[in-house]
Amino acid sequence: MAAITSSGGKRLVLVSGRAHMDLAEAIARELETELVHTDARTFANGEIYARYSESIRGSDVFVIQSHCPPLNEWLMEQLIMVDAAKRASAKRITVVAPFYPYARQDKKGRGREPISARLIADLFTAAGADRIISVDLHAAQIMGFFDGPFDQLFAMPVLMEHFQAQLDPSTLTVVSPDMGRVKVADVWSDKLGAPLAIIHKRRDPKVPNQVSVHEIVGQVEGRVCLIVDDLIDTGRTIVKAAEALKAHGATGVVVAATHAVFSDPAVELLQSEFIDSVVVTDTLPVPESKRWDRLTVLPIAPLIARAIHEVFDDGSVTSMFDGAA
Amino acid sequence: MAAITSSGGKRLVLVSGRAHMDLAEAIARELETELVHTDARTFANGEIYARYSESIRGSDVFVIQSHCPPLNEWLMEQLIMVDAAKRASAKRITVVAPFYPYARQDKKGRGREPISARLIADLFTAAGADRIISVDLHAAQIMGFFDGPFDQLFAMPVLMEHFQAQLDPSTLTVVSPDMGRVKVADVWSDKLGAPLAIIHKRRDPKVPNQVSVHEIVGQVEGRVCLIVDDLIDTGRTIVKAAEALKAHGATGVVVAATHAVFSDPAVELLQSEFIDSVVVTDTLPVPESKRWDRLTVLPIAPLIARAIHEVFDDGSVTSMFDGAA
Amino acid sequence: MAAITSSGGKRLVLVSGRAHMDLAEAIARELETELVHTDARTFANGEIYARYSESIRGSDVFVIQSHCPPLNEWLMEQLIMVDAAKRASAKRITVVAPFYPYARQDKKGRGREPISARLIADLFTAAGADRIISVDLHAAQIMGFFDGPFDQLFAMPVLMEHFQAQLDPSTLTVVSPDMGRVKVADVWSDKLGAPLAIIHKRRDPKVPNQVSVHEIVGQVEGRVCLIVDDLIDTGRTIVKAAEALKAHGATGVVVAATHAVFSDPAVELLQSEFIDSVVVTDTLPVPESKRWDRLTVLPIAPLIARAIHEVFDDGSVTSMFDGAA
Amino acid sequence: MAAITSSGGKRLVLVSGRAHMDLAEAIARELETELVHTDARTFANGEIYARYSESIRGSDVFVIQSHCPPLNEWLMEQLIMVDAAKRASAKRITVVAPFYPYARQDKKGRGREPISARLIADLFTAAGADRIISVDLHAAQIMGFFDGPFDQLFAMPVLMEHFQAQLDPSTLTVVSPDMGRVKVADVWSDKLGAPLAIIHKRRDPKVPNQVSVHEIVGQVEGRVCLIVDDLIDTGRTIVKAAEALKAHGATGVVVAATHAVFSDPAVELLQSEFIDSVVVTDTLPVPESKRWDRLTVLPIAPLIARAIHEVFDDGSVTSMFDGAA
Amino acid sequence: MAAITSSGGKRLVLVSGRAHMDLAEAIARELETELVHTDARTFANGEIYARYSESIRGSDVFVIQSHCPPLNEWLMEQLIMVDAAKRASAKRITVVAPFYPYARQDKKGRGREPISARLIADLFTAAGADRIISVDLHAAQIMGFFDGPFDQLFAMPVLMEHFQAQLDPSTLTVVSPDMGRVKVADVWSDKLGAPLAIIHKRRDPKVPNQVSVHEIVGQVEGRVCLIVDDLIDTGRTIVKAAEALKAHGATGVVVAATHAVFSDPAVELLQSEFIDSVVVTDTLPVPESKRWDRLTVLPIAPLIARAIHEVFDDGSVTSMFDGAA
Amino acid sequence: MAAITSSGGKRLVLVSGRAHMDLAEAIARELETELVHTDARTFANGEIYARYSESIRGSDVFVIQSHCPPLNEWLMEQLIMVDAAKRASAKRITVVAPFYPYARQDKKGRGREPISARLIADLFTAAGADRIISVDLHAAQIMGFFDGPFDQLFAMPVLMEHFQAQLDPSTLTVVSPDMGRVKVADVWSDKLGAPLAIIHKRRDPKVPNQVSVHEIVGQVEGRVCLIVDDLIDTGRTIVKAAEALKAHGATGVVVAATHAVFSDPAVELLQSEFIDSVVVTDTLPVPESKRWDRLTVLPIAPLIARAIHEVFDDGSVTSMFDGAA
Repeated sequence: MAAITSSGGKRLVLVSGRAHMDLAEAIARELETELVHTDARTFANGEIYARYSESIRGSDVFVIQSHCPPLNEWLMEQLIMVDAAKRASAKRITVVAPFYPYARQDKKGRGREPISARLIADLFTAAGADRIISVDLHAAQIMGFFDGPFDQLFAMPVLMEHFQAQLDPSTLTVVSPDMGRVKVADVWSDKLGAPLAIIHKRRDPKVPNQVSVHEIVGQVEGRVCLIVDDLIDTGRTIVKAAEALKAHGATGVVVAATHAVFSDPAVELLQSEFIDSVVVTDTLPVPESKRWDRLTVLPIAPLIARAIHEVFDDGSVTSMFDGAA
Repeated sequence: MAAITSSGGKRLVLVSGRAHMDLAEAIARELETELVHTDARTFANGEIYARYSESIRGSDVFVIQSHCPPLNEWLMEQLIMVDAAKRASAKRITVVAPFYPYARQDKKGRGREPISARLIADLFTAAGADRIISVDLHAAQIMGFFDGPFDQLFAMPVLMEHFQAQLDPSTLTVVSPDMGRVKVADVWSDKLGAPLAIIHKRRDPKVPNQVSVHEIVGQVEGRVCLIVDDLIDTGRTIVKAAEALKAHGATGVVVAATHAVFSDPAVELLQSEFIDSVVVTDTLPVPESKRWDRLTVLPIAPLIARAIHEVFDDGSVTSMFDGAA
Repeated sequence: MAAITSSGGKRLVLVSGRAHMDLAEAIARELETELVHTDARTFANGEIYARYSESIRGSDVFVIQSHCPPLNEWLMEQLIMVDAAKRASAKRITVVAPFYPYARQDKKGRGREPISARLIADLFTAAGADRIISVDLHAAQIMGFFDGPFDQLFAMPVLMEHFQAQLDPSTLTVVSPDMGRVKVADVWSDKLGAPLAIIHKRRDPKVPNQVSVHEIVGQVEGRVCLIVDDLIDTGRTIVKAAEALKAHGATGVVVAATHAVFSDPAVELLQSEFIDSVVVTDTLPVPESKRWDRLTVLPIAPLIARAIHEVFDDGSVTSMFDGAA
Repeated sequence: MAAITSSGGKRLVLVSGRAHMDLAEAIARELETELVHTDARTFANGEIYARYSESIRGSDVFVIQSHCPPLNEWLMEQLIMVDAAKRASAKRITVVAPFYPYARQDKKGRGREPISARLIADLFTAAGADRIISVDLHAAQIMGFFDGPFDQLFAMPVLMEHFQAQLDPSTLTVVSPDMGRVKVADVWSDKLGAPLAIIHKRRDPKVPNQVSVHEIVGQVEGRVCLIVDDLIDTGRTIVKAAEALKAHGATGVVVAATHAVFSDPAVELLQSEFIDSVVVTDTLPVPESKRWDRLTVLPIAPLIARAIHEVFDDGSVTSMFDGAA
Repeated sequence: MAAITSSGGKRLVLVSGRAHMDLAEAIARELETELVHTDARTFANGEIYARYSESIRGSDVFVIQSHCPPLNEWLMEQLIMVDAAKRASAKRITVVAPFYPYARQDKKGRGREPISARLIADLFTAAGADRIISVDLHAAQIMGFFDGPFDQLFAMPVLMEHFQAQLDPSTLTVVSPDMGRVKVADVWSDKLGAPLAIIHKRRDPKVPNQVSVHEIVGQVEGRVCLIVDDLIDTGRTIVKAAEALKAHGATGVVVAATHAVFSDPAVELLQSEFIDSVVVTDTLPVPESKRWDRLTVLPIAPLIARAIHEVFDDGSVTSMFDGAA
Repeated sequence: MAAITSSGGKRLVLVSGRAHMDLAEAIARELETELVHTDARTFANGEIYARYSESIRGSDVFVIQSHCPPLNEWLMEQLIMVDAAKRASAKRITVVAPFYPYARQDKKGRGREPISARLIADLFTAAGADRIISVDLHAAQIMGFFDGPFDQLFAMPVLMEHFQAQLDPSTLTVVSPDMGRVKVADVWSDKLGAPLAIIHKRRDPKVPNQVSVHEIVGQVEGRVCLIVDDLIDTGRTIVKAAEALKAHGATGVVVAATHAVFSDPAVELLQSEFIDSVVVTDTLPVPESKRWDRLTVLPIAPLIARAIHEVFDDGSVTSMFDGAA
């Protein structure tokens, strides 16, 4: 009798939903491989179907999807792809969600609200996901919503590299657009060696009810202001901040954010005269129609590709960001 | 010391997603109560938010949603509502899904496919659902996808009541539009005391490749044909069946189905000269733009309302259909 | 300091319950290996005991059992063996159940019934099974009852190879013995290029109550009829079908089925003059006492062995049946 | 709008498998109610089917089954009944297993063994059981195998009442038939105020290999010996103990045990001249063919009925045995 | 036959671990009931034992424990008490943890860290907890770590009532002691109609490495400063903030916090000349040895008692704080 | 395109809590490797923090902790370390608990008690443990409390080797210190070829109430008595046994136990004149202050190291103890 043995080697498989194929393909190129083709379709009544075109049995599968509108469609597609991978005998399934969906619904602000960011983690688990990779979570606590390994990547090195060539720390001030995002700005301030300012939006204590003022905390006069945030949704907060900064004597306003949600009317607003330039990454697709001359879109694929490689190869994701997290 | 006790009574709470408020309100009217208001919204980037406007603590909550397009939006809204109900201390949560989503993806037809109908049951469970109520499942096995009570309701009594006043069994033939739906037609045939015919779509053994013929099994000449099915999607199968029946001498063709999916071009096709009338229920919304003179939409609310009442009151749902299932 | 590492190789382990050792040994022979010996016993009061005679730590274990009578005994033995494998540190445990037990209890036909086929999947999960391999499920939806990889094998290639040498498509008709099995017959019809006929058992609309007629749909006069089904239990349906076919002029009746359940009085009935030959596989044991001259039992071991090999080696089970599923 | 409320009352439902209907009916009589009828059958191929004949929605269901041979059949029947109750919307499901199956497989005596008593608890959980009631567990640790409420009842009060009228503590010695059961005998000794003796079965240190001697520890000469144990299986241990006791001068040997497993050749052995009488309960059925004149079978139904009543009514099971456990 | 029914009423049961019996007794007094006695002990080797002295079967049990040092002891005691309640057939178990343990370990600040606040939620779930009540969580996202109802109470109304009688909004400024607690201060600022100031602790951009400055953002000169925080641990941050405020011309410094962790050397530091008074609640025990004349300890029992009553009686916890959350 | 593959090798990682670093380091030395450094700390308020200093992604991690006082601290530290390992992407996590905590709380002795030994298993599972290694469980059933592989090691070979050189079987008697530990003594008796004696502690039937006598069962006069037990806690039982043995003519009393719990006043008691020597292992730390001249502490590290190696390398733990278990 011969004992039957196997070397136990494993294979990396990349698959992608249809939301942002450019990103998935860029990741594959970075890894010098190709996406395994997925036959994904939406039927007339809205139901989604997905099937892998080749065997993924025993593989280490990474299911990539970007969560741009129609967000719930792409979420459901990714859940269906995870279910298909589970039933196709994938060895391990990693959800790659560069922009974690429903991240801002991370707590009950009031009674009888959902905690949708936790629900999302539970849905991924129910479908069969073993782990999650995401970039710049709106709140770091979201990692705790998932009962398993969750690798958070930081886009800051990507953005920072862009700025270090362009901005002079001696005339720069890092600005947090509101109180809730101060921690992000603080890290930037430290890294760039530039001072910090904060926009404080609150009710005017002298005038009753609903009148909010945009106080600026810190020195901005005569300085170039770098507003940093994790995401830009409709852009309203950013533009108001920029306007206030310029009104207080800022000589320039530059905006940096990881996730270009760009819901209407973001594209229009961000072209405001108060904003000199905007820099984002492509964790979410930024179609030509949403680009303008003063917008720079940096590729996030190299970062994600490197993380996938570390995860696959039992390397270290932490070491990618020493100091940053 | 006084022991603190409570009578343990419970309260029925009906809430509804936004897909088909008319149905939810009709159910509430049948139960002589009102929906608990839900503040449900879709944000600019596609994320959905839902919050109940009054306390539902300790209640027996029924979360109603119809799964019409955009189906994945409504599914996600329902999941979020279930999560909110769970966190708001509902005693028990019942998902009311008159048309079970993804019911046709109930098996792996080929390798590496998902089983999305099972996934849906898992997602409901992950969100916090304790039980499900649905109408006329595409496959009865779907009940087994859920690890808990699943009450399947049958629209046949509703449809049957409509037909019994209109059709004469002595000249009627019940027709199954294809091989897969024979069991449904068989029950109708028994109930109405009318013979059965079947449309058999298959390859012609005499001609190689892809040529399908629509054989008619059973007597249809000189008879009124009642085509029965669980759902009508694009309507193509139904119209081809009707055409074949008329070609074989049927004097009339009437169509009955529970779920009016009516994906394009169903509305156009169903107005075919070969079809005399179509009868459906409103498990899915049928807007004015999708109605025509020979279409009858029967209200499903009385049936669902009665089932909710039986479930709430520990009565018997089975007894509602004695003989039918 | 030396880091301690291991190559991560894995070992295939085959073990078997006592129901059908011939099959398990044949599978081992096909794989050119041997079963790991299991000390399995039934105590005087009916309790079963099982212990593996050698270490299976870290192995990829396949627990083979056939579910013939006493079916619940063998099911319980398999569950106990899975539990023992889990506690003995098997790396992965695959239940090999060539004939899925309780497959016909796959839905609630009436209120207050169990869904035992789902229960079986849950019991396997509770004991520690990671995956299931089975042959020709009674309903494909059963795969959805299990929350993990489920490989369904198809015996059709095995049976087909037998028939292709013996039957002439030009005089052959494929017959479904009742409405519920039409899909199986449809696939055979396509593969063999032979026409299809159906036996329709139903109430006679002209005579009230319980009188059923066996209508034959399709052409059978002057033709050799091949009745195909997934299983033969008591044989009553098959024999009535054969009798009807001969009465309508069939020149021969051949029966093909995957699972030889052969409950009494199947062996007697199947030797009917209306049946010319019966072909089954040995997914269930067919002892000498249940064999007769016109019965052919084809070995299923090669098919199962190949599937086990593909599963162990991260190959493709789907590719074994291209076109079939 | 009227709020819809319900008093929240609940109903007790008793159902029983087919293993020991006499016991189930006796329990129902004690509770002055009736069993809800269950249509339970075994099909020709060994599969079991069960369906409740009336609605049990919202009820507090107790599923009674005795685990006598064919033990695995009755276990599977009970699991199926629990599944059916779960899917029929029972509010709470209690497994009543007077003799816990596989209780003696409660640990790994050697490597690669199962822990079947734990597996049984997991199977009950998988089927949907919320709680368990059993009588005199072989090892109290079994309660810890179940993740929920587990009420262990003690038959000692029932047996004790029988003996107190018959035996004179001044001439009585309580005997443990082997080392493993000393704790049970100890409790009896305390309760009856009678001394304790122990049969010590072990290898003779003076003679090498496998020769075991039955040492008697304690005074038995001239005394009536009451051998107590939780169960009698084949009776071999008991008879050898009785023989040794008589040989050492015991004037009488009486045996008391809760569970009359009575596997062959127990009935023959227990009629030994060394045993004056045997007293058991009917947790397991004792058919006429297994009874003889010196055997007394005490009814366990009153004890179980009282426990069910306490459980249903949120009373106290512990208070039934103050002092005993 | 008489159907056996029960009214379904329920009973509230309060039990408490040994960490802070005063609080538990105060809660019981507020509810005009008594604690059910628990026999809780620590054995010589450190193992804890707990047993309820009366039946709690079918009850709605609230297990109260404060998490002061030795925190892990009290946590383990509470887990053991939950386990005992589960096995004693409690109907529902609510963990009452006024100060949520490990709340500050709510995210991975660096790779390879635990998320202990999530672990705590999982441990409560594993032991059998159905729900949690806590006061003023360090991060609201912690609610999302638990898969069930989590009622967060707010101590602000209790503290506010104290201050409204004492402080004059026209001369008051609310101060956040660091960037991370700005949101809490913001709510206070709104409620009191007083302006906000922030202490910004960060590296000085002009001096390299580790030198932190305490900037004050907002007007504090000539004003009474109310520093608000969720907890006071060693008090270092608070005292440095107070010193800075006084240095910038504050006329008074008052400190308000919910949780008096008071680790060494908090008691010494807080008696600093820069702090005029400190107000906390007794969510954690504040023994006489940790009290001084300028410390006010407000009772939290009324708030918790009211929440328990609302939860037990299916009322509304949200309505207790309209506007606050 | 190049497929990306990996050899699938794995790495062994040893980490340890702070309870008994000597043991962990000895295990590492036996394996000729080093512990991965863990930054473990206890904060001022009692919360514990732990972080691994290097990447453990994809590794086979063994988390070693001894459960000596403060036992709950060390338990919590181990749970936190398991959580951190899970979130750091360990491939498999094994809890190494040489002395299983709460092992004596393995059943409900009375109503409303916890089963803490089961709770411990559930907590390990909740934190993320895949498997457990422990030495000499108080009750073998504890293995059944964990739903996964549980390797119990036996210290007997270690102790036996020590004694075989020192004791003469012809004058030796093995003694069980009470009825509950007879099974352990029985195995020793067999292995050493020495007779067995038992100390029977029970109420004197002739004297009412609470008076317990220490009967000695078996021959001890003129013999050297070896008292064996799994653990020594306060030592009271052991000393009383030794006194009784000497009183009955034993010429020497030697004590052997695996776990040196040594709660006060064990160290004082065990130096009794009735005890000639005590032999234990270092599964728990035995500081210098708890050692005396007649105490021998044998190293357990070689045994645990060998088991870890077998587990890591898919060898056989069972084979380490052939005959013993």
